[in-house]
Amino acid sequence: MPYAAASERAPTLAIVGGGQLARMMAQPAIAMGLPLRLLAEAEGVSAAQVIPDHQVGDYRDLPTLQMLVEGCAVVTFDHEHVPTEHLHALEDGGVAVRPGPEALVHAQDKAVMRTRLGALGVPCPRNAVVADAADVETFGFPAVLKTTRGGYDGKGVWVARSAEDCAPAFAAAAADTSGRVRILAEELVDFRRELSALVARSPSGQAAAYPVVQTTQVDGICREVVAPAPDLAPALSLQAQEIALTVAGALDVTGILAVELFETTDGRILVNELAMRPHNTGHWSQDGAVTSQFENHLRAVLDLPLGSPVARETWTVMVNILGGQEDAGRLWDGYPHALARDPRLRVHLYGKDLRPGRKVGHVNAYGDDLDDCLDRARHAAAWFAGELGDESE
Amino acid sequence: MPYAAASERAPTLAIVGGGQLARMMAQPAIAMGLPLRLLAEAEGVSAAQVIPDHQVGDYRDLPTLQMLVEGCAVVTFDHEHVPTEHLHALEDGGVAVRPGPEALVHAQDKAVMRTRLGALGVPCPRNAVVADAADVETFGFPAVLKTTRGGYDGKGVWVARSAEDCAPAFAAAAADTSGRVRILAEELVDFRRELSALVARSPSGQAAAYPVVQTTQVDGICREVVAPAPDLAPALSLQAQEIALTVAGALDVTGILAVELFETTDGRILVNELAMRPHNTGHWSQDGAVTSQFENHLRAVLDLPLGSPVARETWTVMVNILGGQEDAGRLWDGYPHALARDPRLRVHLYGKDLRPGRKVGHVNAYGDDLDDCLDRARHAAAWFAGELGDESE
Repeated sequence: MPYAAASERAPTLAIVGGGQLARMMAQPAIAMGLPLRLLAEAEGVSAAQVIPDHQVGDYRDLPTLQMLVEGCAVVTFDHEHVPTEHLHALEDGGVAVRPGPEALVHAQDKAVMRTRLGALGVPCPRNAVVADAADVETFGFPAVLKTTRGGYDGKGVWVARSAEDCAPAFAAAAADTSGRVRILAEELVDFRRELSALVARSPSGQAAAYPVVQTTQVDGICREVVAPAPDLAPALSLQAQEIALTVAGALDVTGILAVELFETTDGRILVNELAMRPHNTGHWSQDGAVTSQFENHLRAVLDLPLGSPVARETWTVMVNILGGQEDAGRLWDGYPHALARDPRLRVHLYGKDLRPGRKVGHVNAYGDDLDDCLDRARHAAAWFAGELGDESE
Repeated sequence: MPYAAASERAPTLAIVGGGQLARMMAQPAIAMGLPLRLLAEAEGVSAAQVIPDHQVGDYRDLPTLQMLVEGCAVVTFDHEHVPTEHLHALEDGGVAVRPGPEALVHAQDKAVMRTRLGALGVPCPRNAVVADAADVETFGFPAVLKTTRGGYDGKGVWVARSAEDCAPAFAAAAADTSGRVRILAEELVDFRRELSALVARSPSGQAAAYPVVQTTQVDGICREVVAPAPDLAPALSLQAQEIALTVAGALDVTGILAVELFETTDGRILVNELAMRPHNTGHWSQDGAVTSQFENHLRAVLDLPLGSPVARETWTVMVNILGGQEDAGRLWDGYPHALARDPRLRVHLYGKDLRPGRKVGHVNAYGDDLDDCLDRARHAAAWFAGELGDESE
């Protein structure tokens, strides 16, 4: 054990997955005096760079998971891909799995999620599990087709306007060897914009709701978040928070729950997706809220009292840094210009190389003027991504 | 090298010393995507718990230091105790030492510091190097006697009101084997309170001055900081910042410079001590300023543009958590009460065991009402330290 005696009094928290979400959990863990133990996909991945006590292994392998949680009070996750039966086996072994498998399945399987949310009376797009193109025709075109498991960042999602458009989705489901991937058809929602409602919830049942934010997706990838969502009707904001709190309670979620929502053109709120971990639409909270989603995730899974989720600023804008099409060796080289231009800019890099379409970091800009925050954050993110030339100062 | 390819583009920063200051540098380093390499006094010390790439060794051993900085662009420090000749040797080897030895000697040797500040016209208490009690008598009683090197947190400081009181100081100097420790006599200043002026300064000469804070010392150890200093005359605040900027520039300081000051009962400012590293009187900035002193220290030593040092809140109060006289195994156990009582409280623990008089963490409380911030921070710090019973909720 590489820890000083003080840590003997603190529980050790195990984290499965070495991505940027685990990396960003490490920052509040340092302040909390909380020892972390990480299961990383490979040496040198984002979180393994910053968490000394890490193991390299496959999260689909139960003995690897059992070795990870040895001596840990609680295990939590950077992603939702650990097989449900392994989570049950870990629970049976005596470690607290947070969020637990009964909750997590709703973030792993979209068909399970839709059935449960429907039963709870939570507004969702019309949906049905479909077996073939004829089923989709019966459901009605246009339809959004989604693999029930394994999709993320726009992967595993297709828009079908005719029977011919259905082939890729069913081919993807057929290609899966687990036998558990089906295709869910959903109505193509006519939405004004996308929103996200984040809550933290502890095993004791305490919950804290963050301000509802506006999120802009491009090709299924989150690009930009504005906190709070501008011009959102108070009734809709309240409804969004109530949906998130209802879902978190009913599903017994522990940690962060992100509810991605559509605000329809006719003024309704519909649930799009659920995530049970710190979420890209909550990164603004690192610099814009009293307690970041990462700290509240740790506090929640350890069943400590939650921190205030209140915004510290009038506006906080988060923009992701995404690798562009070309070579862009300027991720670190982006600092001199970006920091000199904006001394209030907050930069978060993930220790990753720039690759096309890959999230390698994000920036937060806060202040009283939304347009100014948008300009600052967009400029900085584009600059880091190498999309701006020297003339664009 | 345990880092992903992205880090090949970032410089690796070496840090000498594994205490809480290095630990708290690790948080902004995670956000910056900056790889750190640490020289720790022992396995398991505060910063070694959270920095994967660490070596264990003696900072007084030149080959150990040379091994540490191998492949690093810059080396900086958790403390000021590395021998000056080793710093010169590292510079000769091609690594940037920040702050450099010519600057750092002024934080290492109080006699050198007093001579230089006097030459710069910076107001200081009357002072003289003294060889024996007769010298102190000539200087005049009462006098504060300080070892010129090696003192910290009230160690190496005595108040002498008669010739008999001088013995401990000269005995301490005689006991030092380096032959470089002398005794400095200073007038016992009649002060209203203590202040601290922090600046970050980069090799390019950019500097950023934090708001001047009020600091309360007990037995030579910082207990409490209020940012900004309440009711400080604007002219004195400006003078304090100017002194810090003047000293940082004249001494070519890189990184954080903390100037501890007396505000005398007759309304003057006098320099008490200098520190060239993140400083206890700047911990409030982690939660109360746009850019923390730890991030600006990293940005400064890497010669990146500095972040805004402006306060985000009307008041931020920092109170240290110090080990009390009794067993207090409640450092981690302090969380449920402290966090439930105050959802806006910011806690920073160092991964250390509670021992009498030892700094093991601090809390920050910010808001618009100073008395409320003081109450919240003092209560939480006392609770973590085990000084409050169950009846004091």
